[in-house]
Amino acid sequence: MNIQDIIAKKRDSKNLSKEDIHYFITEYVKGNITDYQAAALVMAIYINGMTDEETTNLTLEMAYSGEVLDLSSIGEIVVDKHSTGGVGDKITLIIMPIIASLGIPVAKMSGRGLGFTGGTIDKLESIPGYNVETTIDDFINNVKKKGISIIGQTGNLAPADKKLYALRDTINCVGSKPLIASSIMSKKIAAGANKIVLDVTVGTGAFMKTKEDAEELSYIMKNIGNLANKETVCVLTNMDEPVGYSVGNVLEIMEVIECLKGNIPEDIKEIILTIGSYIIKLSGNGENLEENRNKIIEQIKNGSALKKFIELVENQGGDISYIHDENKFEKAKYIMEVISTEDGYVQRLDAEKVGVTSVHLGAGREKKEDSIDKTVGIVLNKKISDEVKKGDVLAYVYANDEEKGKQAVKDMLTAYEISKEKPQKQKYIIEVI
Amino acid sequence: MNIQDIIAKKRDSKNLSKEDIHYFITEYVKGNITDYQAAALVMAIYINGMTDEETTNLTLEMAYSGEVLDLSSIGEIVVDKHSTGGVGDKITLIIMPIIASLGIPVAKMSGRGLGFTGGTIDKLESIPGYNVETTIDDFINNVKKKGISIIGQTGNLAPADKKLYALRDTINCVGSKPLIASSIMSKKIAAGANKIVLDVTVGTGAFMKTKEDAEELSYIMKNIGNLANKETVCVLTNMDEPVGYSVGNVLEIMEVIECLKGNIPEDIKEIILTIGSYIIKLSGNGENLEENRNKIIEQIKNGSALKKFIELVENQGGDISYIHDENKFEKAKYIMEVISTEDGYVQRLDAEKVGVTSVHLGAGREKKEDSIDKTVGIVLNKKISDEVKKGDVLAYVYANDEEKGKQAVKDMLTAYEISKEKPQKQKYIIEVI
Repeated sequence: MNIQDIIAKKRDSKNLSKEDIHYFITEYVKGNITDYQAAALVMAIYINGMTDEETTNLTLEMAYSGEVLDLSSIGEIVVDKHSTGGVGDKITLIIMPIIASLGIPVAKMSGRGLGFTGGTIDKLESIPGYNVETTIDDFINNVKKKGISIIGQTGNLAPADKKLYALRDTINCVGSKPLIASSIMSKKIAAGANKIVLDVTVGTGAFMKTKEDAEELSYIMKNIGNLANKETVCVLTNMDEPVGYSVGNVLEIMEVIECLKGNIPEDIKEIILTIGSYIIKLSGNGENLEENRNKIIEQIKNGSALKKFIELVENQGGDISYIHDENKFEKAKYIMEVISTEDGYVQRLDAEKVGVTSVHLGAGREKKEDSIDKTVGIVLNKKISDEVKKGDVLAYVYANDEEKGKQAVKDMLTAYEISKEKPQKQKYIIEVI
Repeated sequence: MNIQDIIAKKRDSKNLSKEDIHYFITEYVKGNITDYQAAALVMAIYINGMTDEETTNLTLEMAYSGEVLDLSSIGEIVVDKHSTGGVGDKITLIIMPIIASLGIPVAKMSGRGLGFTGGTIDKLESIPGYNVETTIDDFINNVKKKGISIIGQTGNLAPADKKLYALRDTINCVGSKPLIASSIMSKKIAAGANKIVLDVTVGTGAFMKTKEDAEELSYIMKNIGNLANKETVCVLTNMDEPVGYSVGNVLEIMEVIECLKGNIPEDIKEIILTIGSYIIKLSGNGENLEENRNKIIEQIKNGSALKKFIELVENQGGDISYIHDENKFEKAKYIMEVISTEDGYVQRLDAEKVGVTSVHLGAGREKKEDSIDKTVGIVLNKKISDEVKKGDVLAYVYANDEEKGKQAVKDMLTAYEISKEKPQKQKYIIEVI
């Protein structure tokens, strides 16, 4: 077996065998296959595609290319939740404490943001003291003790995915469905879950721009889950406008706290009720989705969800006084208004543009090595279908650099499209697969 | 402009602009584009193809990525001849002295063999003393003095092609028509010719296995020639069986000398008459192809062609006593017979298998760095449509290692297919484009 024959197969649109994929992944991780050979193969995969069987084999090879966590000491069933990424996407941070407050163990490893999509770990670090880096043993012990732990990816999980992902990034081959699916699922499998709920975002602010693309990706991931014996549910959520009102790290953590205190925007509420009810179902704690939704509402109302979040933060070393008094959070130097120049209704609010604008303010990374500015970002005041009068504030820009802030105000104006006719309300949940 | 956008264009089957290709080639040669980015782009080109305009732009960028020879001091018109490679292909060495003997200047740079196809330069070095490495100035002066010089590629000609060719080799992307065409034509343009005659080989022993593929490649190269203002003629020649009877370096040089002495196998004769008559025509020395064929026959008959070959060898430092007395050539240690086990006619004689067998004997290189054994090879005794009796010698294996020789005898038996019915004679010239 050699890499040249494997490249030729995929170049000619033939299927790779389990052995071909095993050889490629193991030898690539060892360094016996060069980056340029891998790049040629990745491009051939991007263009010619992969069957579900090939994608599953690739996923399993990447998952088992490093350490695979054993979470059996936490419980027989461990549910993991993952989002394909979006703008203002803080769902994990709201949903997980709710789930944990119901006595369902939550052992969650999350990522940092890259490009215009934010990362859960960056947001958590906005709480002073919160330690996202613990050993695997401490991680498991924290879950046993408090029922919940959320940390950054640690250990040598799916090193083949890390290497391939970095390569895909440099050769513009990120957006291939078999490669996205195998990247996500390999990390989930390595992270030890046996049930997986995926938030597959759809729209301008997501990798998948259309419902059809998101459906295709979902079927691929669900199929990998089935073949790998990991029950998987995909919830397709709207990412044409940002999730909730805040974009940026401190700003989003403040919105998370508000949600857990019961002040939940409509879109966030619908998403956490849907995704949460499936997590409860998959964990074996409630077959009836309607009842599960009621349980979630109850845990917020009765304060248990917020209490669990405080426990999580405290246990990870975070300063919980910030949760009790959000005014303690450091604020950006400039808060600038984005003012509407016309009357009408918000017809479109381009999520990607909002995301890119917040990256330019410093809230996100353009390259992996970039550092981020926790306090900057955007707070929306008007969302799709809201009525707007000339002179109304559409959004607030939080900036630490005046010039960048001014540019962001201009950019934000182009993210909004105002028209006379009132558009339909956005559908928050598109489909469950 | 950046390489990521260029990769994405070709990944999505869009056309690259002249500027895209200029950027790619110049930055790749400078080392600002990595091999893995180039590999991804090459694979996308392989799969999604290139228009004639893209291929021409790529060719010109590669041609002008280094030195471009100025042969105007030799003459207004300089014709170059190139073969896409084959087994036993010694046409250049026979045709060029004939052309030079007609007073048409020949300034020819040739390559070494790689894989199962031999190289003109390796064959010339079989004549003791022949120096294939001279400066460009000496090369031009030799042509002026003797009317002919044949040397190895020298100087910094088409460095982009060198770099890309090596990459294509490692990622199994050699066989793409736009990439083959641009590689050949960029070298021809850099070598200073303004008229080009291409021997496009077709069959088992060639890159192009079918007439259709060879035609497509020919049209691409002809089109590049036209757009680059270099008149180009493609002669499609049969490579289902080897050219002539000898395969191997010393063995082929001996066959060249025999041909120039007038003992020409039928296939070689037809090929040199056709290609030669076009070279004469393109050089402006005879519009009538039939008359040109007669001139070639005459130059062999009257000894002028052989005389010119001797002049060439002498001028390059070669020992011409070998030409007068071929017995002086060193012989392989073992000469083994390949014996027919049946009666009938040679139905097929697989050129690629003969080529690969001769490489295994040591006559060719599997990798660029390999050294070659000049004396080994194969001399055919029977070719397609010849009658064969059980016990007849089909071919002779020339080996310096007994085991390798025995293996080659076995392999050669599988290269022959004998059957009862007499097949049609092979057509040596398939088409002229």
